Amino acid sequence: MRAVDLIRKKRDAGEHSREEINFLVSGYTRGEIPDYQMSAWLMATWIRGLSRTEIAALTEAMLHSGEIVTFPELSGKKVDKHSTGGVGDKTSLILAPIVAAGGLSVPMISGRGLGHTGGTLDKLESIPGFNTALSLTDFRRVLRECGMALIGQTAEIAPADKKIYALRDVTSTVENVGLICASIMSKKLAEGIDALVLDVKTGSGAFMQKEEDSVRLAELMVETAQRMGKKAVALITDMDQPLGRFAGHSHEVIESVEVLNGRGAADLRDLSIELSAWMFYLGERTKSVDEGRALAQKLVASGEALAKFRRGISLQSGDARVVNDYSVLPQARGRVEVNSSASGFLAATNCMEFGNALAMLGGGREQKEDKIDPGVGLEFRKRIGDPVCVGESLVTIYYNSEAKLAEARQRIADSFQISDQQPPEKKLIRRLVGA
Amino acid sequence: MRAVDLIRKKRDAGEHSREEINFLVSGYTRGEIPDYQMSAWLMATWIRGLSRTEIAALTEAMLHSGEIVTFPELSGKKVDKHSTGGVGDKTSLILAPIVAAGGLSVPMISGRGLGHTGGTLDKLESIPGFNTALSLTDFRRVLRECGMALIGQTAEIAPADKKIYALRDVTSTVENVGLICASIMSKKLAEGIDALVLDVKTGSGAFMQKEEDSVRLAELMVETAQRMGKKAVALITDMDQPLGRFAGHSHEVIESVEVLNGRGAADLRDLSIELSAWMFYLGERTKSVDEGRALAQKLVASGEALAKFRRGISLQSGDARVVNDYSVLPQARGRVEVNSSASGFLAATNCMEFGNALAMLGGGREQKEDKIDPGVGLEFRKRIGDPVCVGESLVTIYYNSEAKLAEARQRIADSFQISDQQPPEKKLIRRLVGA
Repeated sequence: MRAVDLIRKKRDAGEHSREEINFLVSGYTRGEIPDYQMSAWLMATWIRGLSRTEIAALTEAMLHSGEIVTFPELSGKKVDKHSTGGVGDKTSLILAPIVAAGGLSVPMISGRGLGHTGGTLDKLESIPGFNTALSLTDFRRVLRECGMALIGQTAEIAPADKKIYALRDVTSTVENVGLICASIMSKKLAEGIDALVLDVKTGSGAFMQKEEDSVRLAELMVETAQRMGKKAVALITDMDQPLGRFAGHSHEVIESVEVLNGRGAADLRDLSIELSAWMFYLGERTKSVDEGRALAQKLVASGEALAKFRRGISLQSGDARVVNDYSVLPQARGRVEVNSSASGFLAATNCMEFGNALAMLGGGREQKEDKIDPGVGLEFRKRIGDPVCVGESLVTIYYNSEAKLAEARQRIADSFQISDQQPPEKKLIRRLVGA
Repeated sequence: MRAVDLIRKKRDAGEHSREEINFLVSGYTRGEIPDYQMSAWLMATWIRGLSRTEIAALTEAMLHSGEIVTFPELSGKKVDKHSTGGVGDKTSLILAPIVAAGGLSVPMISGRGLGHTGGTLDKLESIPGFNTALSLTDFRRVLRECGMALIGQTAEIAPADKKIYALRDVTSTVENVGLICASIMSKKLAEGIDALVLDVKTGSGAFMQKEEDSVRLAELMVETAQRMGKKAVALITDMDQPLGRFAGHSHEVIESVEVLNGRGAADLRDLSIELSAWMFYLGERTKSVDEGRALAQKLVASGEALAKFRRGISLQSGDARVVNDYSVLPQARGRVEVNSSASGFLAATNCMEFGNALAMLGGGREQKEDKIDPGVGLEFRKRIGDPVCVGESLVTIYYNSEAKLAEARQRIADSFQISDQQPPEKKLIRRLVGA
């Protein structure tokens, strides 16, 4: 078998056998197939697509490129959630303590932000001392002690995905449902979970902007999980505007604590409860989603979820005072408003641009090596459908450097569409897949 | 400008501006754009295609990546021929001396064989001492002294093409008319010629197997040459079977000398005369192609063309005795026949397989670094349409090693199609483009 022949086959829209996919993935992981051949194959694959059988084979080849974690020491069910990423999406920080407080285990391997999206690891690391680089041994220990542990992809977990993802990022081969499915699922299936809830974003701030693409990705992921013997469901959720009121690392930790205190923005609270409810149901903690919803609400109201978050932070060496004292978090020094230039109703946002503007201010990465400034952030003062007056603030920018402030501010201003008519209300949860 | 954005643009079937093409070509040539990004772009380009404007921009960017040779010291017209390659195509060795003997200059920069095709440089190097690696200074001197010089691509000529071609070869992005056109024309336009005759092969032994693809490539190349102020014409010629009676390096040198002596296979003789005739006409040596044909025939009959070949070999340090004494050439030690397993008419051949079988015997390269055995060869004893009896020889294999002999012999045997009906005669020259 030769890589050049497999590239040709995919170029000509052929379908690979399981052996061919294995050859490519293992050859590339071992360094026998060079980057330039893999990138040619990735581009051919991006354009020609992958069949369901090929996606399954790719997921499994990437999964088996590393270690598959198991937790024989845990008696209860292990559940996780994965989001395809967006702006202001901090639900992991909320639902992990809720679900752990409800008695299930949440072994969560998360990613970092790239481009316009934020990453769970980066958000957690704005808490002084918080260590996301636990060894597998410590990961197990934390999980055993408090039912939740949040770490980054280790060298042992799906190394093929790590290497292929880095290449996709620089060769414009990211947004392909087959490749995304294999990348996500190979990592999630390596976690040793029993069930997985997928939050597939759709809209102007999502990687998949069209709902039909999000649905297709959701179907593929649910199918892949189920074929591997895992329970799975996907919620197609709105990303036409940021989730919650804040984007930016410290701000999102604060907003998460607010929700765990029974406060915070309604959309964020609702989605966090909804995702938790599905985790309870798939993890067989409750007999229905309704029951799961009630349990999640109860665990927030009782303070048990917040206590679990505090415990989890401590066990991962973070400063747990954060749940009572937000001043332990890095804060930005300056603030400036982005005011509306028109009156009417907020009709739409180019949500991805908020993420890009935040990244320009230091609150995100343009290159993998970039350091993040956790203090900077954006506060979204209006939601789609809200009335707006000229001169009224749409966004508050919290910044540290004026370097790109004017440009970022302009980008944000340009990303709002004000209209005379009030737009029809859009549902936060658009659809369920696999339920 | 960023390479990743240009890759995305081509991936999404966008059209590049001249500046974008320049950015890619010059960035890659200088090593600022890595192989893995160029190969992703090449694959996107292979699949999405290039517009005529993009092909023009690519050709010019590659042309200007190096030196453009001029010959102010030569008063007459400079003409060249380029073939897209096939099995047994040795016309360069025949027409260069004919055209030089007719008073035009032929500054020919040729390639090496790869895959199933033979290369002019490799064929010439089977002549002991023949030096194809002349400096540009020596190239000029030889050209001035005898009107013909045959060398390989130097570091100065279109370095971008050299680098991009090497990458295309290992990423299955070779057979695309836009990329082929830019690759060929950037080199040929750097030669400082006034006119170019293109021999575009079509059929089972050609890179472009379908006639419509060959015609499209021919049209693109002729148009590119004309836009750059060069006269150009393309002949679409048959490669459904080998050209001439022999393939293999020493054998092809011998067959070329035979044609220059007025002997040799009819198809090879006819095509060599025809291509020479067009070179005479485009080089304004004759007023018509007919007149060019007559001149070419006269120069062969008089022995002037052969004398020119002898002189050219000498000036490039080759053993010029070869034109009278074939024993100076490397010869294979063994010979074996491939006999027909059926009676009937030779209906078709899988011509590419002859080239592949020859390469297996050492008479071609599978990898760029492979050494060639110039003595091995194939003698084709039947042409399409010939009657064949069971047990009669179709091919004589001249070999040195038995290592892959059985496999090569089988491949050759499998590449003949014998039929009860005599197939309709196919024309050697299928079409003219740009005439």
